[in-house]
Amino acid sequence: MDLAVLLSALQLPQPAPGDARPPALHRRLYQAIKGAITSGALSGGLKLPATRVLAQELKLSRNTVLLAYEQLAAEGYLVATTQGSVVARLPRIASADDSRASKATPGLSARGLVVPMHWRTGSDILKAFTPGIPDIGKFPLPQWRALLDRAYRDINPRRLTFGETGGEPELRSAVAAYVAAARGVHCDPEQVIVTQGAQGALDLCARMLADPGQVAWLENPGYLGARVAMQTAGLQLHGIAVDAAGARPTEADWRDHPPRLIYLTPAHQYPMGPVLAAERRYDLLQRARAANAWIIEDDYDSEFRYEGDPIPAMCSLLPSSPVIYVGTFSKTLLPVLRLGYAVVPHSVSRALGNIGAQFTRPGHVAEQLALARLIESGRYARHLRTMRSLYAERRAALKLALDRHLGGLVGVSGGAAGLHLTAVFQEAIDDLAVHERARRAGLVVAPLSRYYLPGSRDPLRSGMLLGYGTVANQAIEGAVKQLAQLIDRERRGL
Amino acid sequence: MDLAVLLSALQLPQPAPGDARPPALHRRLYQAIKGAITSGALSGGLKLPATRVLAQELKLSRNTVLLAYEQLAAEGYLVATTQGSVVARLPRIASADDSRASKATPGLSARGLVVPMHWRTGSDILKAFTPGIPDIGKFPLPQWRALLDRAYRDINPRRLTFGETGGEPELRSAVAAYVAAARGVHCDPEQVIVTQGAQGALDLCARMLADPGQVAWLENPGYLGARVAMQTAGLQLHGIAVDAAGARPTEADWRDHPPRLIYLTPAHQYPMGPVLAAERRYDLLQRARAANAWIIEDDYDSEFRYEGDPIPAMCSLLPSSPVIYVGTFSKTLLPVLRLGYAVVPHSVSRALGNIGAQFTRPGHVAEQLALARLIESGRYARHLRTMRSLYAERRAALKLALDRHLGGLVGVSGGAAGLHLTAVFQEAIDDLAVHERARRAGLVVAPLSRYYLPGSRDPLRSGMLLGYGTVANQAIEGAVKQLAQLIDRERRGL
Repeated sequence: MDLAVLLSALQLPQPAPGDARPPALHRRLYQAIKGAITSGALSGGLKLPATRVLAQELKLSRNTVLLAYEQLAAEGYLVATTQGSVVARLPRIASADDSRASKATPGLSARGLVVPMHWRTGSDILKAFTPGIPDIGKFPLPQWRALLDRAYRDINPRRLTFGETGGEPELRSAVAAYVAAARGVHCDPEQVIVTQGAQGALDLCARMLADPGQVAWLENPGYLGARVAMQTAGLQLHGIAVDAAGARPTEADWRDHPPRLIYLTPAHQYPMGPVLAAERRYDLLQRARAANAWIIEDDYDSEFRYEGDPIPAMCSLLPSSPVIYVGTFSKTLLPVLRLGYAVVPHSVSRALGNIGAQFTRPGHVAEQLALARLIESGRYARHLRTMRSLYAERRAALKLALDRHLGGLVGVSGGAAGLHLTAVFQEAIDDLAVHERARRAGLVVAPLSRYYLPGSRDPLRSGMLLGYGTVANQAIEGAVKQLAQLIDRERRGL
Repeated sequence: MDLAVLLSALQLPQPAPGDARPPALHRRLYQAIKGAITSGALSGGLKLPATRVLAQELKLSRNTVLLAYEQLAAEGYLVATTQGSVVARLPRIASADDSRASKATPGLSARGLVVPMHWRTGSDILKAFTPGIPDIGKFPLPQWRALLDRAYRDINPRRLTFGETGGEPELRSAVAAYVAAARGVHCDPEQVIVTQGAQGALDLCARMLADPGQVAWLENPGYLGARVAMQTAGLQLHGIAVDAAGARPTEADWRDHPPRLIYLTPAHQYPMGPVLAAERRYDLLQRARAANAWIIEDDYDSEFRYEGDPIPAMCSLLPSSPVIYVGTFSKTLLPVLRLGYAVVPHSVSRALGNIGAQFTRPGHVAEQLALARLIESGRYARHLRTMRSLYAERRAALKLALDRHLGGLVGVSGGAAGLHLTAVFQEAIDDLAVHERARRAGLVVAPLSRYYLPGSRDPLRSGMLLGYGTVANQAIEGAVKQLAQLIDRERRGL
């Protein structure tokens, strides 16, 4: 090629003023030639001058030119031939459309588009009455820091690569011992699969125990996280009505919507609170088995039960039940830890552990070891006892305040457990509007209607989920009073 | 009911000898009555004696009987009626089949069954020549411990609930600055989505950018983790041949298998090593845009490039490209951290961040803050420089040893980057057999044939992936010699 063509096409960039470290000379030459190629100033097939010639012409060392040519060849802008370096034939670039970014990028998948967009975040989360958040201030942070640091200090380097499939053995053992003592769930450590919180377990089950198009039963109203997991897994959602004895599937449900997955919160129905009655438990277990369906028992906050003894887990009622038992440390310790677990039958424990490992790769080993120590040392059980009596007081205070300020207007539901009460409006009040008014007043109340499946055939109730994990005892009365006032204004259309 | 019926059905359990804390009296009575109900000894509909009567008969306090009855009612074994407590009608329990557990539980879903079962784990992982694992011993563990502890100490309690959608702002900013400086990827922090390692990003993309039945292109041979992500998302896999200039899609590929997702490793094809040539990059970008397809650019180990300058990322070649750029800290720091990221176009950044948050809930905040500090302080860049020169030496030593002991028998591929070389056998040698022999000899070599899609139309090569992250410089020569000997025995059928 003519040397002049190259030279006229090149615009050796000058270092920007104030640029502390201008790029090396070969980088500048590389950039210049690359720019000439991509802009079309040097077209495909042109032979570049030999490095020696160009070096002389540009008053650069030959090595500088060589480095630039080599980099261009490594990236495929130049092709080395027996005749020398030739410009690669790049496709003509349709740059006219480039500015219209939104037109140019494809969108989400159909299953991506159905994911709801209201995942909460941010500064509101520690206000009264965010549901589902424990009292963060009571978390034994100094002990946790010490345990975590010790885990990192003492760790075998091998354990800094990947974690073990299914979770770290220490944590699996600690969880197995814990669920046996606290929840009557008797299992081998190999049946425990450590997950990214309960949500990780739900996601794993939805995808790996059911196929697209199969039916998933959800309690209605029910837990939104389960809905997202089932929906994005391509399952067909079917709502099961809930009454004072928990989920109440009908003959028509079994006949017309035979399930593959049955999602239940037997110890403390979310968000209404009832315990799933023994009769329904046995019935569900037997009919699920006959229908070749899996039951997912989400035991998300049963650690906190305030009347009587703990309600035994459903998975331990019958031997070899088709039940995946799901628990979490998000409600008892910290959501941010993202540590939960599933207790699964022997028949699928190896497979589900392996699949979980393939999906996200096992990690967070030091965190798992620290948590195992926290449980084994008895510190975890002590923390639970402390929190249980703390929450019992708050729950009583919240009930009292609701009676005093909203008595007659709401029916208080929510059972004798957990971290929230549900106040159901006894007249037609728009709970989304109340939610919005509360938000502006600095309060968080989750609207009950949001927990119903869209297009529910069941009578949709309106109301408020009121969490007491994030509100101090002495602040409850005032916050409820404030809530009562804004509900009153909403009723009067002010 | 006759009191005698109840009494004859009850077997009050005795405390087991050595049981330090026998259950409370009301628990024992509760267990006894529950056992009688579930065994059928007390059948549904029977009215139990009044608490006062039973208490007298059993010589217990009335309160003990009351507590037992209340717990049974809470769980639904007794139903409170105006006539008193009545036994619930439990379905008859088919216990005969219970022992046959494997029959009783449903299995995995169809998409669960296709997940391969060979996720590696355990004690072998730090042996020569495990691919894809960095030198764990060089990780700045004391600094990491200090940064992590400081993050936990200084953290705003709000941040112990959930993390921010899309990742912590500090880390998103640090990553945006890093990819701009190191990889020529210019983006806003809002375009960075923090994920559970690269695998988390692949999983998110496979599910949320494509629907079941749509076609995903994979390089062939290619990365197994991408294959698992696409396959379990229900996508149809289509292999694209790889040559010395990277993935080489043909006209037939475009015409007969139009893609929705195109998975590429442009900077360093995995596992063969070539750089994707500029001509193909531009071509793929333009044709992907025309086909409304997404490109996933997995830049998994391009931090370690040993010849010339870094190869610029594909996503920055054209403005508003349909490219998801994926990076990870697993190869540069520690896999166990499970921290990776995707840089995504503005058009989908909010949606993908939200969806990621809905799938697993954002967490691991302290870890993200510690990593952000590590990057901002310059410590991360220093670590990369140290590791780059360390790996360059090992790579040279490995090349030399392969030449010396296996010259002629293998062709060394693997490019000028990363953490492994690929030795391709130049004659028919069963690489699975070599893998097994090596394993018995205490060496890890990943068989190249495993990286091909099953039923590949492309000429399937056999060989070995040899990682140098897990082997000290001075051990390389000996290990290769050992490898050569066992390959020789394999060839001679010994």
